[in-house]
Amino acid sequence: MTGRYSEDELIATLFAPLAGAAALGLKDDAALLPPQVEPLAVTTDMLVAGVHFFPDDPPSLIAKKALRVNLSDLAAKAATPCGFLLSIALPPEWTNEWLAAFAQGLGEDARDFRAPLLGGDTSATPGPLTIAITAMGAAPRFVSRAGAQPGDGLYVSGAIGDAALGLLLRRDPSTAAHLSVDQRDALLTRYLLPQPRLDLVDLLRGEAKSAMDVSDGLAGDLVKLTRTSGVSARVEIARVPFSAAGRAMISGDQTLLETALTGGDDYEILFTAGPGFSPPAGVARIGEIVAGDDPPILDGWPAGSHRAARLSFAHF
Amino acid sequence: MTGRYSEDELIATLFAPLAGAAALGLKDDAALLPPQVEPLAVTTDMLVAGVHFFPDDPPSLIAKKALRVNLSDLAAKAATPCGFLLSIALPPEWTNEWLAAFAQGLGEDARDFRAPLLGGDTSATPGPLTIAITAMGAAPRFVSRAGAQPGDGLYVSGAIGDAALGLLLRRDPSTAAHLSVDQRDALLTRYLLPQPRLDLVDLLRGEAKSAMDVSDGLAGDLVKLTRTSGVSARVEIARVPFSAAGRAMISGDQTLLETALTGGDDYEILFTAGPGFSPPAGVARIGEIVAGDDPPILDGWPAGSHRAARLSFAHF
Repeated sequence: MTGRYSEDELIATLFAPLAGAAALGLKDDAALLPPQVEPLAVTTDMLVAGVHFFPDDPPSLIAKKALRVNLSDLAAKAATPCGFLLSIALPPEWTNEWLAAFAQGLGEDARDFRAPLLGGDTSATPGPLTIAITAMGAAPRFVSRAGAQPGDGLYVSGAIGDAALGLLLRRDPSTAAHLSVDQRDALLTRYLLPQPRLDLVDLLRGEAKSAMDVSDGLAGDLVKLTRTSGVSARVEIARVPFSAAGRAMISGDQTLLETALTGGDDYEILFTAGPGFSPPAGVARIGEIVAGDDPPILDGWPAGSHRAARLSFAHF
Repeated sequence: MTGRYSEDELIATLFAPLAGAAALGLKDDAALLPPQVEPLAVTTDMLVAGVHFFPDDPPSLIAKKALRVNLSDLAAKAATPCGFLLSIALPPEWTNEWLAAFAQGLGEDARDFRAPLLGGDTSATPGPLTIAITAMGAAPRFVSRAGAQPGDGLYVSGAIGDAALGLLLRRDPSTAAHLSVDQRDALLTRYLLPQPRLDLVDLLRGEAKSAMDVSDGLAGDLVKLTRTSGVSARVEIARVPFSAAGRAMISGDQTLLETALTGGDDYEILFTAGPGFSPPAGVARIGEIVAGDDPPILDGWPAGSHRAARLSFAHF
């Protein structure tokens, strides 16, 4: 234990600089949020080393991922982050250096996404590093999963599958030897560091009838969205957006198309909007909502049209 | 994996019945709280099997403890609970029966303390069961740790040390053979099942100038309170309230007085109030706040008057 911060020291040294006014200096039993004029979206996600990330990933990127998966949930609800709470259980081998890098990465994101630290808890664990973050955001027009209606267009932001393909490269660097170094880096980075689509909050707030973030694979998450809304959908796989690196990797092995469509960690936004909606650059129309409670129809699925009821990636 | 709920099934079967309206049926990316007229107190605590509880403790009591340690923080801030989020990482050996008992205990407390489940996350872990709860409550007059002033009386609710003594009995049942069965049960129960002092919220809201919950031992927590307020204190150990069972156990081994004063898991409320305050039954005046930044003076400490700067129980 020599040379390691006490709990009080690490809070004062590493985490207090990340704290917002509501955190009361991280010196109290609870944070104190002022009265909220807007409805408040609240979400929580837990990440476990060896399940959601590799234990030897850079600590700053582990911190950013843990925060960003929560911010992605807020983005999907058209909510503007106002802060977060962090619980972290540290395995026996933690060091001051590891934790300082973790706090630095977390602080960079807290600043960049205007989401200050509000409170938290630190613990020891005999098991793997475990991080639970609860994030909150103002949601003047919360966009639920339940609002999709027949006739809505079905849209997805960004590119799908990069993180799942990046995970394959991370697990077996000999995969897809035909990719350039830049293409490999692009995919690996998408796995390591999600980009919460907070830039889409205004668009969703104005136009979306339903939305969710794509965290467990596009196909399975589409099932969740349609089931919650009590509708079905028809998707043209040919319209699903892929990055240049993603296309290059899939072109070398067509079975990877399914990986891209069912893998996790995209953190893009899947949403629906009425017939008058015209998507901006970077948002693709991939299909439409139809009546009924059948699982979505995926036209152009590798093995033909496919009902995707059980296609989802689960950390469970 | 045969015979175990999928993630969707366990949420729908076990946790959805505990959910409040703001949880949106646990089917969305986030909960949606309505606008908050009152300030909102928010707190989080993480519990790890083998660190904060025994892995073979009854699952309903593990659930209750995980929620109650958070509700205790709210009580200390004079906040009225409005709900909580649960993240739980399940070890490989979990069963439906275990999880159903966990959810049942959690549901009983969610009902009894009027704190519905608002959202959550479930995960697998190769390590120990790990639970993180974030609880929220309305705090029209938040009582911080920072408001203690010289001349304030220093008060503590209930009885101190029972949980720490109960933990000793739990670890070594041969300890304190002179106790009656009822006395042993009383101490063991205090360790297993904290009682968040939400019954004191009105009193604290009206009278307390500073407060915190006693979770890491009275002596160490008093140091935190006085340090945060920038004051010192003088305590008469003879005035610290003990239960009949606690007194009986200490009478058999005077070294256990220190255990009682420095052990954790009391979940009573330590607070200060102005000179005009008259404590109700069940609240003891144990000393007073004095000027200065020295650690509190504990008159009557077993080894004489003692400066308690480092006396605290840490799960860390």
